[in-house]
Amino acid sequence: MPTFNPLVEKLAPPPVPSVFAWGRAYDGSRGPLIDLSQAVPGYPPHPDMLALLGDMASSTAYCGYGPIEGDADLRRAYAEHVSQVYGATLTPENIHVTSGCNEAFASAAMTVAGPGQTVLMTNPFYFNHDTTLAMMGVKMRTVACRPEDGFLPKPDTIAAAITPEVRALALVSPNNPTGAVYPPDLLLAIFELCRARDIWLILDETYRDFLPEAGRAPHGLFGQDDWQERLISLYSFSKSLCIPGHRLGAITAGSKTVEQIAKVMDNLQICAPRSAQAAVARALPMLAAWREDNRQEIVRRAEALTVTMAKLPEWRVDSLGAYFAFVRHPFPAPRSAAVAERLAREAGVICIPGAYFGEGQEAYLRFAFANADAETISLLEERLGDFRPA
Amino acid sequence: MPTFNPLVEKLAPPPVPSVFAWGRAYDGSRGPLIDLSQAVPGYPPHPDMLALLGDMASSTAYCGYGPIEGDADLRRAYAEHVSQVYGATLTPENIHVTSGCNEAFASAAMTVAGPGQTVLMTNPFYFNHDTTLAMMGVKMRTVACRPEDGFLPKPDTIAAAITPEVRALALVSPNNPTGAVYPPDLLLAIFELCRARDIWLILDETYRDFLPEAGRAPHGLFGQDDWQERLISLYSFSKSLCIPGHRLGAITAGSKTVEQIAKVMDNLQICAPRSAQAAVARALPMLAAWREDNRQEIVRRAEALTVTMAKLPEWRVDSLGAYFAFVRHPFPAPRSAAVAERLAREAGVICIPGAYFGEGQEAYLRFAFANADAETISLLEERLGDFRPA
Repeated sequence: MPTFNPLVEKLAPPPVPSVFAWGRAYDGSRGPLIDLSQAVPGYPPHPDMLALLGDMASSTAYCGYGPIEGDADLRRAYAEHVSQVYGATLTPENIHVTSGCNEAFASAAMTVAGPGQTVLMTNPFYFNHDTTLAMMGVKMRTVACRPEDGFLPKPDTIAAAITPEVRALALVSPNNPTGAVYPPDLLLAIFELCRARDIWLILDETYRDFLPEAGRAPHGLFGQDDWQERLISLYSFSKSLCIPGHRLGAITAGSKTVEQIAKVMDNLQICAPRSAQAAVARALPMLAAWREDNRQEIVRRAEALTVTMAKLPEWRVDSLGAYFAFVRHPFPAPRSAAVAERLAREAGVICIPGAYFGEGQEAYLRFAFANADAETISLLEERLGDFRPA
Repeated sequence: MPTFNPLVEKLAPPPVPSVFAWGRAYDGSRGPLIDLSQAVPGYPPHPDMLALLGDMASSTAYCGYGPIEGDADLRRAYAEHVSQVYGATLTPENIHVTSGCNEAFASAAMTVAGPGQTVLMTNPFYFNHDTTLAMMGVKMRTVACRPEDGFLPKPDTIAAAITPEVRALALVSPNNPTGAVYPPDLLLAIFELCRARDIWLILDETYRDFLPEAGRAPHGLFGQDDWQERLISLYSFSKSLCIPGHRLGAITAGSKTVEQIAKVMDNLQICAPRSAQAAVARALPMLAAWREDNRQEIVRRAEALTVTMAKLPEWRVDSLGAYFAFVRHPFPAPRSAAVAERLAREAGVICIPGAYFGEGQEAYLRFAFANADAETISLLEERLGDFRPA
């Protein structure tokens, strides 16, 4: 049998299915499984969203191929949406629709960095960013984010890590896995650093709809005169519209960058699924109030987690925001995967081991608290309080 | 502004949109535009297919993430379908669902070949296979397929091209762009060659539902004891179910290969769109008779093209089958792109220039005849007969 591509063969198996497997081994003795693993909204899509998805999917209008960059309606609707969110002026030429935000990252990364070139990320990082670069033969180097800094990257640390091989810095804000929300002035300082050192800034903003304050722009970078020359912002419709299964995301970038990304996307899949594009183009302006209600609901879940974890003094929430909390478990000896596995099997709580997000994260677990309602979150007091890994 | 990945920057822009642009420049003076460019079925999906797509898309059941490898229902339904088509025994573990067949090729190629390694293809080739390898930094080398051989690759020529750097041979049968249908015994000889030289065989079978004879297995490779060790077969639901906009394809491979492909697919997009998976799982057994009617319709279109082109002795159909004809235009001087552009602008016929499919193909144009009904095809007599590039 011929060998596989060594870059693919040496990747660890995808982590989420293994975490689900631990959950399946839980016997139910503590009550229903509490799923704080994969980031998925714990409530259904709006009925109008479902109706639109059904209408468009049953229409012959969207059965054919569409433009590589995305359907004109969605590019226009999303450009208007982004313009509003950031108080900036974006045009449809700045938008490339993708089949989810992982594909947005893969195509953006490939557009700016080839095999043997280097992309900087943070540690901890979103594991699929790491494995995406690894399978493409792109080198990855990390900038440490420390709990004492709220897991925010420091511009000085980034500056020191930008060597001539570095082509891009890839950040996630609000962060996965820590939940840390990078303040606008930090993002501006980082953008200016990228300008000074002439590298790309890839900013994954999948979780931006769940900021604790309503109506504040996540950052002002789209107001910078030269943003089109180096900023690539990534987004997912999965979380805020509760439709991850429909696989839809978007890239906001300079129009010249969009042209390059289109070459990659044409090869990867010609175009994103079309009926979902048509549905989201209509839903985006319609469901603004519903999304705001959900934002408030997620904020309540964050508060519920804070209240519950305060009753568990051995456990420490080192960071919490938007969708995730990065929680320090109280067990010195076992590794994070062993803690998470036993927590799943014995306490019926599934979450992602810190070690999956980078070296030196063995003390942590990622809780995707947005998946569970406040009442479910309150059950953690008993489940975690009684838990002792053997 | 930082530079782009040179592997991406040096790719030509995607060819299909440029061909559409030529068509938009046509003034309509010869009657409606005849589109023989992108391979898209020229008839709508079955009403039951549309109803299923609508039902599933409006269901909350498919809004969440699904298994990376594909939903169990579709993997099972497609494994049964493939077993039936080939008279072989395939299991769901042999199936990986993708978002279209381009993604199937990209993920299969990445699974077996990394940057700097080599994949063999034919010349002419499907252009997205070439650009997919190029953007990943995989080297591509070609095996010439000659008109006097019906554009079939010769095992001897392949054997001579398999040097130690070659990791895989990628073939397309029925072929894109030539339409050539590779006979089962040729495919067996090539498979045996791949076995002897220990390389992968990637076989893109996107057009296999449109073979001229009904009920004959396209090949017997799934009956080989060791097929799981080196064969990766690719397929698209786009053509036979008329749903390219829903982006759904599938890979059939050894279960160990599927595990590796899942790592790539997790990074590229976590899972394929789910509601379309649920719809196709149900439609596949239901619409067998309808697909057979369409196969016969495409055969009639092939016959119509043969009859029409016989009236144009200056034009020569060097190869025709399944979905495509590879047609030799009668103009010695202009390059194929110039001929295709003027054919679009002046005669209102869009097709793909031969040169887009490889070096030395300037004399050819690819006609995706399956896009047009027999009556439309008959109009080519006048449109091509009157046409003289300046």
